[in-house]
Amino acid sequence: MNEQAAAETLDAILGGALRLYQPRRGYRFSVEAVLLGRFAAARAGERVLDLGAGCGVVALTLARLGAPREVVALEFQPALGAMIERNAALNGLSRVRAVCADLRSRHALGAAPGSFDLVVANPPFRARQSGRESPEPGRRAARAESAATLADFVAAAARWTRHGGRVAMVFAAARSAELVSALRAARLEPKRIRFVHPAADARASTVLVEARKGGGVEVAVEPPLVMYRAPGVFSVEARALLGRP
Amino acid sequence: MNEQAAAETLDAILGGALRLYQPRRGYRFSVEAVLLGRFAAARAGERVLDLGAGCGVVALTLARLGAPREVVALEFQPALGAMIERNAALNGLSRVRAVCADLRSRHALGAAPGSFDLVVANPPFRARQSGRESPEPGRRAARAESAATLADFVAAAARWTRHGGRVAMVFAAARSAELVSALRAARLEPKRIRFVHPAADARASTVLVEARKGGGVEVAVEPPLVMYRAPGVFSVEARALLGRP
Repeated sequence: MNEQAAAETLDAILGGALRLYQPRRGYRFSVEAVLLGRFAAARAGERVLDLGAGCGVVALTLARLGAPREVVALEFQPALGAMIERNAALNGLSRVRAVCADLRSRHALGAAPGSFDLVVANPPFRARQSGRESPEPGRRAARAESAATLADFVAAAARWTRHGGRVAMVFAAARSAELVSALRAARLEPKRIRFVHPAADARASTVLVEARKGGGVEVAVEPPLVMYRAPGVFSVEARALLGRP
Repeated sequence: MNEQAAAETLDAILGGALRLYQPRRGYRFSVEAVLLGRFAAARAGERVLDLGAGCGVVALTLARLGAPREVVALEFQPALGAMIERNAALNGLSRVRAVCADLRSRHALGAAPGSFDLVVANPPFRARQSGRESPEPGRRAARAESAATLADFVAAAARWTRHGGRVAMVFAAARSAELVSALRAARLEPKRIRFVHPAADARASTVLVEARKGGGVEVAVEPPLVMYRAPGVFSVEARALLGRP
């Protein structure tokens, strides 16, 4: 096992339809990222932007499941940016390309404001001040990137989405009120909301929101997504979404 | 049957624990009002205000199920105000008293701002401009009252709740994003949200929100309340909440 192999893992998702390198320590993608890719569902021909793309899991899921024209994966850390490019090549998804820059910079993309049909993001779930310093160097680096706050993610999404375009985010359900009001304040009107519950009788852990730039005020609150039907047993829908046997 | 009896009905809710007169036409209380009374759950000794109380269904549910010190039922229409008083007497709930005034007036209550521990409201679900003129005189009167908008209800709730006190509302799920951001803008921070779904695989119809005046930003999104487990068959929880056999 060479040094690079030791520092990373290769994982399959979507029932093996996508394989992804990711760091063994530090940044690791989560089930939420896959759910976001499913929920956002890029349409044919769309230009898509993934903010804070990590190893590219959301960007690659969108490219694998839909037919977007292009998916730009914006990632601050160069090591992860390089990994996105390798993951795109590994899966034959040349429509996905990485851009290494800070999403807080207006000039991060060299693209005009409003030039994307769909912007997706999986912002860090915990408010920065509430997190303890991680003893893990990889995680500290991920934290450093996540100096970008929810407000930064919403501002970037509002900047790069075209009028009438969509923004889709996954976030902690406990911060869903904050997310909804931040989106609305940026003229990104929530149109679809789906809460993810570990079990049918449990509080929501996660929220998926799709907003439309300049949209009207009505929102569809979709049926709850229940992940487990018994302890350790995925629900039928969760199995289908995640591509688990 | 005398004229008054012809113009109204007497209905039992909460498994017969509460009986309520209400107009046969025009204003009629809904299942949502009962759910709000259950959700808000007045604590012992609290002073409670019900905004736009109708026939008093939420106020009386709170008084029947809890031990509030006092429940003020604010209602614009004098005929409904008189009905609240009769319903309070019918159920032996003298802690409930009606005040006839416009909730948009700062002086409606003759009470100091911040003098209630809990404010509840079941605002009209449809935005006023989106409603057609009803051919029914009773409904037109109810509409006239509901010149009070969601913003008016939120402003009144913010005015009369003490710092640290609670506000609980039931509203159309399709307008939940609007409700959440209106509450937050008034420093009423959502702390508990529960969506009501007609069926487990259906969109939410209704949302219940409890906010705290001056509270922190985290919110608990409670397990979904599913009303029917099959067409026409209430779920176990809905039966328990509504007191149906």
